[in-house]
Amino acid sequence: MSGAGKRLIPLLDRVLVEKLQPKKKTAGGVLLPESAISKLNEAKVVAVGPGSRTQDGKTVPPSCREGDHVLLPEFGGSAINVDGKELYLYRDDEILAKLE
Amino acid sequence: MSGAGKRLIPLLDRVLVEKLQPKKKTAGGVLLPESAISKLNEAKVVAVGPGSRTQDGKTVPPSCREGDHVLLPEFGGSAINVDGKELYLYRDDEILAKLE
Amino acid sequence: MSGAGKRLIPLLDRVLVEKLQPKKKTAGGVLLPESAISKLNEAKVVAVGPGSRTQDGKTVPPSCREGDHVLLPEFGGSAINVDGKELYLYRDDEILAKLE
Amino acid sequence: MSGAGKRLIPLLDRVLVEKLQPKKKTAGGVLLPESAISKLNEAKVVAVGPGSRTQDGKTVPPSCREGDHVLLPEFGGSAINVDGKELYLYRDDEILAKLE
Amino acid sequence: MSGAGKRLIPLLDRVLVEKLQPKKKTAGGVLLPESAISKLNEAKVVAVGPGSRTQDGKTVPPSCREGDHVLLPEFGGSAINVDGKELYLYRDDEILAKLE
Amino acid sequence: MSGAGKRLIPLLDRVLVEKLQPKKKTAGGVLLPESAISKLNEAKVVAVGPGSRTQDGKTVPPSCREGDHVLLPEFGGSAINVDGKELYLYRDDEILAKLE
Amino acid sequence: MSGAGKRLIPLLDRVLVEKLQPKKKTAGGVLLPESAISKLNEAKVVAVGPGSRTQDGKTVPPSCREGDHVLLPEFGGSAINVDGKELYLYRDDEILAKLE
Repeated sequence: MSGAGKRLIPLLDRVLVEKLQPKKKTAGGVLLPESAISKLNEAKVVAVGPGSRTQDGKTVPPSCREGDHVLLPEFGGSAINVDGKELYLYRDDEILAKLE
Repeated sequence: MSGAGKRLIPLLDRVLVEKLQPKKKTAGGVLLPESAISKLNEAKVVAVGPGSRTQDGKTVPPSCREGDHVLLPEFGGSAINVDGKELYLYRDDEILAKLE
Repeated sequence: MSGAGKRLIPLLDRVLVEKLQPKKKTAGGVLLPESAISKLNEAKVVAVGPGSRTQDGKTVPPSCREGDHVLLPEFGGSAINVDGKELYLYRDDEILAKLE
Repeated sequence: MSGAGKRLIPLLDRVLVEKLQPKKKTAGGVLLPESAISKLNEAKVVAVGPGSRTQDGKTVPPSCREGDHVLLPEFGGSAINVDGKELYLYRDDEILAKLE
Repeated sequence: MSGAGKRLIPLLDRVLVEKLQPKKKTAGGVLLPESAISKLNEAKVVAVGPGSRTQDGKTVPPSCREGDHVLLPEFGGSAINVDGKELYLYRDDEILAKLE
Repeated sequence: MSGAGKRLIPLLDRVLVEKLQPKKKTAGGVLLPESAISKLNEAKVVAVGPGSRTQDGKTVPPSCREGDHVLLPEFGGSAINVDGKELYLYRDDEILAKLE
Repeated sequence: MSGAGKRLIPLLDRVLVEKLQPKKKTAGGVLLPESAISKLNEAKVVAVGPGSRTQDGKTVPPSCREGDHVLLPEFGGSAINVDGKELYLYRDDEILAKLE
């Protein structure tokens, strides 16, 4: 996306996330076997929309906040290339859990 | 469309947009490689409808405003030729994000 | 339809339209090339129903008014032959936009 | 149906209609060409039910009245043979328009 | 069903009916031709449930009453053998009409 | 299920039932012919959940009570083996009728 | 998941469970035959989300509590590997019953 310098603000109940690379080494620096490297489904929330709309037009704030460490579903999300960085847009209710 | 001189006003929650051509050169004028040229999914909002209707008939204003710089989904939208210019109609809740 | 002399009143949120023939010549009378002649999707609203019903039975007036110049979707609408004239019935929320 | 002498009262939002035979001659008695004879989609309303139910159980009266001259959709309706006469049951919101 | 002597009470908006055999002779005793014998879609209401539930849990009484002479749809209904008698359970809103 | 000694409490609008064996002999002890032995669709209600939830979160009590003699639909229900006994879980609105 | 030391908090109406291994021996230590070992559908609730959202945005607390012993449906649930332990996320209304 050529929106260099522009801030991307998700609309409605969308959540913009950056996927976190899974750790390939133990804390002590030992290389983890492939099986131990969990699939890439953790992410950091980069931006959130105002929230979903109820049937009579009220806005319901999203469950996720900017900065949250979250667990993504195996499928879903649309990839967006922002200044060369691969980000993803999910709907708030697709995000499985928070990691605190 | 032969509505030369006529103003097109989207109905309900429809949003009329004009897709923005992706920049093919860096600021310094260097030609960008094909891979770096993001697909055409940014647009400028040309006109918006009054908004969607709730179950009991109330109108809920759209998230987008005329003049907004927005991010379009990969699919969807219906093409309309207005005085030789290719514009697109989306539903307000199809628009992914704003770029500010 | 043999309802000669009878007035056709759409029910609920239906809108009766007459499609407008696209202009085949420029204002100066020059024949337009086939490609420039936009597909037939503009129409004039001939009659409108009272409107759609909310979940608790209230009637919500349609967006279109009799006499409006409107933009039709590419698909949809049911053809009705009224006294030899080809008219079309759409649902109000299928009409894309007004041209003013 | 062997309900000889019994009155058929549609339930909920159902409408009982009798299809009208299209006129095969002009007013002056001249035989109309086959193409000019519109398909059989006009009907007279014979009886109407009390109306549809809203989500909280309220009854919403139908748009059609007994005796109305109406325009039927091309498809739909269930045929019922009442004392040898072929009648049809439609849902009120399937009826396209009234002819007045 | 071995519930000999037990009364069957339909739940929610279900209606228990017994289909009526179509008359095979005219009032005067003359055998009706096969074509004139309408398919078996008339029935007598044997028992009705309390009614359907609205979205907020209120009960809405059924349209049919015990003893009503009704018109059944061509399809639907689940057969139940009660003490050797073949009865049918329909949802109240499947019943087409009453015959009075 | 190894929940020996544990009580199974259905959640929401679920109903736990034990299917009743159809009587194979008449009251007088005479063996019934296969055709007269109705399919196994009667059951006794063993436990019921609190009930279904309305759209705004209110709980609506189930139609069935513990101890009711009920009529099951031909299909549906999930089998659960509780301490070697085959029980079934249905949704409350799947139960067809009560036998009193 | 590399969230070592992080607490996983399900969002909305999701419930995190750990499946219980079925007992392979009787209380007296005798090995159970394969047929008697029930399929793995019992679990302990590890964490619950705040609950589902009603149509107007209110939160409805889940039926399950942390620590509950529950019965899982045969299908559904998404597997999550948390620090090498296989846990599962279900929606609250998918959980069949509690064992108390």
